[in-house]
Amino acid sequence: MVGHVSSASVPPVEPSPWTPREAELLAVTLSLLQDHGYERLTLEAVATTAQASKATMYRRWPSKADLVLAAFIEGVRQSVVPPDTGTLRGDLLHLGGAIRDHCARHAGSMRAVLVEVSNNPALRDAMQHQFLDQRKALIQSILMRAVDRGEIHRAAVSDELWDVLPGYLIFRAVFANRQPTAETVTALVDDVIMPSLTRTIG
Amino acid sequence: MVGHVSSASVPPVEPSPWTPREAELLAVTLSLLQDHGYERLTLEAVATTAQASKATMYRRWPSKADLVLAAFIEGVRQSVVPPDTGTLRGDLLHLGGAIRDHCARHAGSMRAVLVEVSNNPALRDAMQHQFLDQRKALIQSILMRAVDRGEIHRAAVSDELWDVLPGYLIFRAVFANRQPTAETVTALVDDVIMPSLTRTIG
Repeated sequence: MVGHVSSASVPPVEPSPWTPREAELLAVTLSLLQDHGYERLTLEAVATTAQASKATMYRRWPSKADLVLAAFIEGVRQSVVPPDTGTLRGDLLHLGGAIRDHCARHAGSMRAVLVEVSNNPALRDAMQHQFLDQRKALIQSILMRAVDRGEIHRAAVSDELWDVLPGYLIFRAVFANRQPTAETVTALVDDVIMPSLTRTIG
Repeated sequence: MVGHVSSASVPPVEPSPWTPREAELLAVTLSLLQDHGYERLTLEAVATTAQASKATMYRRWPSKADLVLAAFIEGVRQSVVPPDTGTLRGDLLHLGGAIRDHCARHAGSMRAVLVEVSNNPALRDAMQHQFLDQRKALIQSILMRAVDRGEIHRAAVSDELWDVLPGYLIFRAVFANRQPTAETVTALVDDVIMPSLTRTIG
């Protein structure tokens, strides 16, 4: 079921929904979150660090959870440039490298967001729509271009397992406490993802 | 580098380090953790529910973090029966199914343990030695038996990517909030793990 992904299109990087000043506040949030963790983060600390008014902060993000999720999504959005290297392997290595970089910088925030999301259905919906759906479209567009080039069979594009590449890298960084390296990304693409996508499909 | 795994051996299920009464206290802990979350769990509540003395609890597990980690590891230990179905695919499906069952019951505790582990180096070491090393030995013994049967090449047994099967399933349950199904396990084994392990190795 990837019929809604038009072949050979690369989803554009979505424009930021935030003003430059708001984006700056979210960057400060992400930085404080990484340094001090979710528990010790306060909107007041972000306002003080960024020399913003607390009223401005609360108007945009009524709760700490709203603020942290917005910061997380904005950080990911900036780090996602859809790759177009001309080969599936090249695109996957590029994407895997970008995910690895992001995990290395933000493992702490990702753990914090994870816990908040699990406790908060509204955040879970926001995460789903603002983050996961966009990620899925990005990966499936990479795969559909490979189908168009004849590199893989269309039936290899799976709705069930579209997120093995990001999923394993995030697992490594966030759960297994074993930060993925450049070698992890290469081995994952060459020894797992490519053999899976190019397997014989009966 | 799997030279320390003797071919064709199945690691025995390790005997519990706990007395039956202690194991019961850990089962109560896991149950309360699943129902109420880490934040609201107290040693007192476990003692009350299990009709144990608080002194007994504190003597065994000086902190809530110690208690929760012990409960988590004991829960996993009980759920791990090394499969020996006679085929690699059968063993992987069996293992994947056991991991999926565990995730379905304990996603909440896994999130709680994750956060504690990330904040606490002593817990991180315990997790590494009591949990991850044992898991790795189990998976590598499954693979070494497949090597002995001629199902896969020895070079396919990877020290870097040994945990793609559990890693992706845990990612799905805990992070992506998309509980893996029986179909997820089958697709993961047939479309990803088996093509990876049986790929042509130059």
